Amino acid sequence: MKTVAFIGLGNMGIPMTRNLVEAGFEVIGYDLSAAALETAVGHGVKRAVSAAEAAAAADVVISMLPTGEHVRNAYLGPSGLIETSRPGTLLMDSSTISSTVTVELAAAARAAGRRMIDAPVSGGTPRARSGTLTFMVGGDASDVDDAQPLLEAMGQRIFHVGVSGAGHTTKLCNNVLSGICMAGTAEALALGVANGLDPAILSEVMRNSSGSNYALERYHPFPGLMDGVPSANNFAGGFRSDFQLKDMRLAKELANSSRVFSAMGNLACELFALHCSNGHAAEDYSSIIKLAMDLDQYFAGHPVSGGESK
Amino acid sequence: MKTVAFIGLGNMGIPMTRNLVEAGFEVIGYDLSAAALETAVGHGVKRAVSAAEAAAAADVVISMLPTGEHVRNAYLGPSGLIETSRPGTLLMDSSTISSTVTVELAAAARAAGRRMIDAPVSGGTPRARSGTLTFMVGGDASDVDDAQPLLEAMGQRIFHVGVSGAGHTTKLCNNVLSGICMAGTAEALALGVANGLDPAILSEVMRNSSGSNYALERYHPFPGLMDGVPSANNFAGGFRSDFQLKDMRLAKELANSSRVFSAMGNLACELFALHCSNGHAAEDYSSIIKLAMDLDQYFAGHPVSGGESK
Amino acid sequence: MKTVAFIGLGNMGIPMTRNLVEAGFEVIGYDLSAAALETAVGHGVKRAVSAAEAAAAADVVISMLPTGEHVRNAYLGPSGLIETSRPGTLLMDSSTISSTVTVELAAAARAAGRRMIDAPVSGGTPRARSGTLTFMVGGDASDVDDAQPLLEAMGQRIFHVGVSGAGHTTKLCNNVLSGICMAGTAEALALGVANGLDPAILSEVMRNSSGSNYALERYHPFPGLMDGVPSANNFAGGFRSDFQLKDMRLAKELANSSRVFSAMGNLACELFALHCSNGHAAEDYSSIIKLAMDLDQYFAGHPVSGGESK
Amino acid sequence: MKTVAFIGLGNMGIPMTRNLVEAGFEVIGYDLSAAALETAVGHGVKRAVSAAEAAAAADVVISMLPTGEHVRNAYLGPSGLIETSRPGTLLMDSSTISSTVTVELAAAARAAGRRMIDAPVSGGTPRARSGTLTFMVGGDASDVDDAQPLLEAMGQRIFHVGVSGAGHTTKLCNNVLSGICMAGTAEALALGVANGLDPAILSEVMRNSSGSNYALERYHPFPGLMDGVPSANNFAGGFRSDFQLKDMRLAKELANSSRVFSAMGNLACELFALHCSNGHAAEDYSSIIKLAMDLDQYFAGHPVSGGESK
Repeated sequence: MKTVAFIGLGNMGIPMTRNLVEAGFEVIGYDLSAAALETAVGHGVKRAVSAAEAAAAADVVISMLPTGEHVRNAYLGPSGLIETSRPGTLLMDSSTISSTVTVELAAAARAAGRRMIDAPVSGGTPRARSGTLTFMVGGDASDVDDAQPLLEAMGQRIFHVGVSGAGHTTKLCNNVLSGICMAGTAEALALGVANGLDPAILSEVMRNSSGSNYALERYHPFPGLMDGVPSANNFAGGFRSDFQLKDMRLAKELANSSRVFSAMGNLACELFALHCSNGHAAEDYSSIIKLAMDLDQYFAGHPVSGGESK
Repeated sequence: MKTVAFIGLGNMGIPMTRNLVEAGFEVIGYDLSAAALETAVGHGVKRAVSAAEAAAAADVVISMLPTGEHVRNAYLGPSGLIETSRPGTLLMDSSTISSTVTVELAAAARAAGRRMIDAPVSGGTPRARSGTLTFMVGGDASDVDDAQPLLEAMGQRIFHVGVSGAGHTTKLCNNVLSGICMAGTAEALALGVANGLDPAILSEVMRNSSGSNYALERYHPFPGLMDGVPSANNFAGGFRSDFQLKDMRLAKELANSSRVFSAMGNLACELFALHCSNGHAAEDYSSIIKLAMDLDQYFAGHPVSGGESK
Repeated sequence: MKTVAFIGLGNMGIPMTRNLVEAGFEVIGYDLSAAALETAVGHGVKRAVSAAEAAAAADVVISMLPTGEHVRNAYLGPSGLIETSRPGTLLMDSSTISSTVTVELAAAARAAGRRMIDAPVSGGTPRARSGTLTFMVGGDASDVDDAQPLLEAMGQRIFHVGVSGAGHTTKLCNNVLSGICMAGTAEALALGVANGLDPAILSEVMRNSSGSNYALERYHPFPGLMDGVPSANNFAGGFRSDFQLKDMRLAKELANSSRVFSAMGNLACELFALHCSNGHAAEDYSSIIKLAMDLDQYFAGHPVSGGESK
Repeated sequence: MKTVAFIGLGNMGIPMTRNLVEAGFEVIGYDLSAAALETAVGHGVKRAVSAAEAAAAADVVISMLPTGEHVRNAYLGPSGLIETSRPGTLLMDSSTISSTVTVELAAAARAAGRRMIDAPVSGGTPRARSGTLTFMVGGDASDVDDAQPLLEAMGQRIFHVGVSGAGHTTKLCNNVLSGICMAGTAEALALGVANGLDPAILSEVMRNSSGSNYALERYHPFPGLMDGVPSANNFAGGFRSDFQLKDMRLAKELANSSRVFSAMGNLACELFALHCSNGHAAEDYSSIIKLAMDLDQYFAGHPVSGGESK
């Protein structure tokens, strides 16, 4: 487990490979973008000319790609990772995709004599950098055990959540719930503010009551009430609204195909779709508060005092 | 501030008056139900023959009544509390009602030379008993200060949230948010379970991720995963679903009249309405999980092992 | 029943009074806007200096005002219509307001020896002009009979729908349904178009199937498919989206207070709220199609050919 | 085009084959159910021992099957219709399935030298019997032309709506819209009835106003207001709620994958899911009115008088 092929060197792949290199792994990277690959080489990743070349040289293959289609093509397409990796190789997909794709790929991998786990992450770029990601891992226990040193090089909390696909399912469950809670928190704040409440006091009370949730506690959507979160920085950084939308669409598809009631999730998904259409796709998902209330109007009436940068 | 009239001796009023008596206040109680009044007398409350009689003898009047109509009638009706209380009396309504009613009553009280604050609570019967309620108080600072000893006799956290009506608005904001998060949590669990996840593991992961909220942390709706909550006891005790529905209807009305976006809150409200129609009105509001999934079917396939109390 | 006081000379009141004058009634009008009053005088309405003056001189009083608050003030405020009209006068409110206001006003009118009916209209400005409005009338049969000649001067279809308030309730039921069907039609068209269907053919099929509704048959929201409707004219004219929103809010309030399930109505209401926030408040309500799809993008790809009128 | 293989002899296939036989076509039928096949033989259909045998003998193959999985298996599975039919055969699928399946099958058929069109129907069993179905046909114009005599033997209105898959897309658009309008109509009726309106009068008014739609005009959900519809017969017959749900799920999937806004459609879909869970899956889809109001309670208060047929 010393040599790792890493396919997909984006905002997440770059810091993840840096942590792997620092932990002593040999990492062979590939990305369609030459610039991305160059950056990775800068912190010690070895350059491959193709995903296939990387896979052929590795004990473990990790993929971190944008969509299920990218993942399927990477594994099953011509010169795909299943075909080009060595027999017995451990394949690990950390993308956020539908578990139906995962299950299909894991079966194909097994049929070809490879092993596959799904290990999506939560925590975003900041925790990718600090090596404190949370991993939700699906697959056979022995494969998850084998991956443990790698997972620990990149993350802080490793949950083995079930069989193949369970990692991706867990991720979708969490993200649909976080979208619901964030959209609901935005509405509750809008309701209070429109009726004269101070959002800071309202938040303090709800944080100590049954309305408490991650948005109020650690990721507040109302500008000026919490430091170090996207709402403190014009909703830059964090988790883009269109990525949130992508995950909620996957969750909606999964709920629909498994015939699970998902009225709240469906609605939150459509609200994020409208929010993205309104021009906020690149802003952090907590910016959904703009759908529930007009922040500009609010701050026109409640100017932020002088010296503070908010 | 030694003599307190307490109007409304239900599940909340009974333990609240006990704590007042134990803190040394003289409490004169009244309730339409002779049995309720008798219970209160049993722990030291003095019996009044009418709300008016209680009010006439008191420095402070506290009301704890089921609906805004009850509250309005109690204060403004014939021989109402505003009329029969002494000039300067501090009136405190701890019911959960619409802030529009509060604002109206507070203005009438002021015009009649009385003082009024709204001080709804959260925490339910258990924390009413232990004297650890949370109070969300709206009104003038000096009146809230005067009420402080009483509030501390009954509660642990006292938030002065703004002017008259702000207490009730805060309560509604919190309760609509808790309804949204609970319904959303139910859906997320249903989605995971239908796709093969263990609800305990899924909950553990989400509790450590962006989906974290009060339902997962302290009030879990899935039977068998948490002790001491209504889901551990067939959804008995706790906060009735029809009370949750009542509060969400008040929040919906407030959002509608103040033209605030409330798509998530509206939907959650209607889901609780359907849940109540389905025969679950008296069950704790976390039983909304039954709308999202068929618990009987689940437990038929996952029998709880012998010695465990669920 | 020869002399009619008409209070409220807006887009509807102007053509309605013209038809009354042409039918031989003596009409005494009043509006806060001097310009509006001047226009009415231009087609034979007599000028009153106040609503009270008009009411005092009339056998029948008709009001056509923007909101329930306007109506309540006009009837119950200082020098209100109930007080200043003569005993026995027939009062008729044609505004679209909540039936709870109507019921209150009708009771006050009765107590003061006046008679009151509610008679909201459908059909908009075009049918107000042509005297072909539909009236939904609530009140005592004898009062509705007395109003018949007036109603026939302004409208084509007169429905006596029940007791006092029933007219306004009927109007709200219809308008919430039309909002639901319009929003639903927009989504169905968006779904088809995004999947390559020609909206004209899709509409033709649905018009002949179970999806048929008023929007497809007589008020098509997709530009270029129907002449003489707002979508053929950049959504100018017709029924403003913010008026639709106002009516849906009234319906939502009524559903909430009467504890009626209204999940679809609630959602459609919030969608119209978002649509208005997006800058389309003044456009006809069929412009809600812009929330479901990007018309500009569509027409960039499907340019309308030269000589065609769209 | 004289010999027709017909695969799937259910409630729709039986009357459709009868009409084909009566129009002079030679029909070779197959169904997994021996009883169904026996019935078809009773009106002149020739018995095949397998779908493959039927296909091998035919100029045209028509399939009428429950789900996309059935259709895919029938065409692409072992001894599938594409393989066993003769080169040049016209394949026509009249099932209601996702257009993504259709597009895949049509491509496979073309690659194998067969021709394929999708031709789902509306009108249900009654119009299947009377030969007055509506067909929404997707495919090449020449293939649709070739199918015309068959379509006319079974239907009254034939719409060629576009390329392959367009038939199924059109069907889904219509059915999601009909579900939205039916659920909305149910809510509007419930709102009126709860506020004292007579549902017959309310319906008459809305039928003449902007709320008009197929449910009010031809398929009324309120028992006792219209003859010959399922609501007049305890919601027996007609179009089962779980079939409506199935179609709305397909539409939801299509909207999700094509990124089309579908908040109203999603919600209506979930309402039908709850309705089916409540035990009404086998009742006609207009029974969704039971979700919006308690019909039993209504009729307890408004007994239907003796001689009337409801």
